[in-house]
Amino acid sequence: MIFNRLTKEIKNKQCPICVGLDTRIEYLPEDIKNLYAINTIDGICDAIFDFNRQLIDELYKIIPSVKIQNAYYEMYGIKGISVYKKTIDYAKKAGLIVIADVKRGDIGSTSFAYAQAHIGKTPALESFKPFDADIMTVNPYFGSDGIKPFIDVCKKQDKGLFILVKTSNPSSIEIQDLVLENGSFVYENAAELVIKWGIDTIDNECGYNAVGAVIGATHKMQGIKLRRLMKNTFFLIPGYGAQGASADDVAGMFDDNGAGSIVNSSRAVICAWKNMQDMHFTKAAKKAVIVMKDDINRAVNT
Amino acid sequence: MIFNRLTKEIKNKQCPICVGLDTRIEYLPEDIKNLYAINTIDGICDAIFDFNRQLIDELYKIIPSVKIQNAYYEMYGIKGISVYKKTIDYAKKAGLIVIADVKRGDIGSTSFAYAQAHIGKTPALESFKPFDADIMTVNPYFGSDGIKPFIDVCKKQDKGLFILVKTSNPSSIEIQDLVLENGSFVYENAAELVIKWGIDTIDNECGYNAVGAVIGATHKMQGIKLRRLMKNTFFLIPGYGAQGASADDVAGMFDDNGAGSIVNSSRAVICAWKNMQDMHFTKAAKKAVIVMKDDINRAVNT
Repeated sequence: MIFNRLTKEIKNKQCPICVGLDTRIEYLPEDIKNLYAINTIDGICDAIFDFNRQLIDELYKIIPSVKIQNAYYEMYGIKGISVYKKTIDYAKKAGLIVIADVKRGDIGSTSFAYAQAHIGKTPALESFKPFDADIMTVNPYFGSDGIKPFIDVCKKQDKGLFILVKTSNPSSIEIQDLVLENGSFVYENAAELVIKWGIDTIDNECGYNAVGAVIGATHKMQGIKLRRLMKNTFFLIPGYGAQGASADDVAGMFDDNGAGSIVNSSRAVICAWKNMQDMHFTKAAKKAVIVMKDDINRAVNT
Repeated sequence: MIFNRLTKEIKNKQCPICVGLDTRIEYLPEDIKNLYAINTIDGICDAIFDFNRQLIDELYKIIPSVKIQNAYYEMYGIKGISVYKKTIDYAKKAGLIVIADVKRGDIGSTSFAYAQAHIGKTPALESFKPFDADIMTVNPYFGSDGIKPFIDVCKKQDKGLFILVKTSNPSSIEIQDLVLENGSFVYENAAELVIKWGIDTIDNECGYNAVGAVIGATHKMQGIKLRRLMKNTFFLIPGYGAQGASADDVAGMFDDNGAGSIVNSSRAVICAWKNMQDMHFTKAAKKAVIVMKDDINRAVNT
């Protein structure tokens, strides 16, 4: 079961971190850009893949997972999406658990197509797995009948979901923090739905089910409350570092065993070379991961 | 301005309908499938494009717009997405207004990348427009800072949005119909946000702004209420036909001039041949469009 595997990988590597490969051409050092014709889309995309590949080569032994943000590949069109797919494949081959950060969501029949695309198989050609990530992010706005097809595919293919509950951005309050007539917030109701959706997918070894939640690192108190409520829900925590949250902000979102959460960092890792100009970008990324992991482990263990 | 153009096209063709190209290989008649090696992804994708192309050739003179559901192309991987792009280009060349039904949404920086991908340009290579649809659908769960980048791109590129307010599926009640402490529903709050987001993009000729809303045809009373509230908001109305809503259900979502809305139909049009076996699939689709358009015009005008 995927969250059991993730729990073990985090423990083995002592690293509750996924690195966000939100790679834009602007994030690459000059020396790698100089190798490609970056005045063309093909050149840009090849440079980005080279950058991702070198990062994965450097990091796969110390991190359990990468999160690949689909938007930064769609931005470069078809060729960009083929680099998205190549990056998924390369990371999986290196043993990493791949989170497709796609935030899809629609009515049931369409959600089923998205689930098949990102974590499943194409029904017309069962041997074909279009993108084949391990876990995908999903938006809950449609409710249960829009979510069920994702869960069905998870059960069949041993995959997982992270469903948006409380996102890291400031304006998340506008819909997610609306106060209901019973005094609770919309995001708490989303959390209750996520609990319900996961209930029959629990893995007894790790104690987590296949339906995880996205909880922004920037919401410390809400995160602590949600952890108490969502005992069997794995958390993906974005917003550490570049978005301003600290290790102390996220510590309360881990469970009593110091497990059950993975913290994402994107720019702070992949652009670490910008603040360490004497270092190769892969070494700078590695250093940033180690600093971050020590920081989070310290906060979680105290 | 895109909704002005859409308003004119609807009026000229007397057809407030967009046809949903949610094309799956299962929707194709045997005679077109037989022309392709549909035991391969390339064959499936080529067959789907041929089907789309023939439908567009038959329909472009009588409909103003097509809505292309991204999920049904992602389901076939990279090659599927290249058919998605080819379909957008082909439809635009035929003069149709193309709605990219992608329902994207994320934090600001990522939303900006999605906006660039679907309705904008790639900043690293300004001549490159990755998908270049006219209008895209967006999910509001992140709030204003996640929506602003989409609106910025709309202003620059003269494009439009349809933001989810009240979706057509039964489970939409689970989050969208939660009752707030002031007695209103979550979807009404989303509607108020949509009004606010569109306020400085209004086009004086048609009276509509660049930030439209998705309102399910299956919610007749809510649709009437929202039309009263959202005087300058163009509506995309899915759920007619296959999902059970009738012309009388959607009539109240049009404005006093019988404008301001476009009703989508996907399977009822593109699979019409299944109930008209003696007719070519394009002729069956055309017949279905004419029946639907007469049905809706009758309901709107009475």
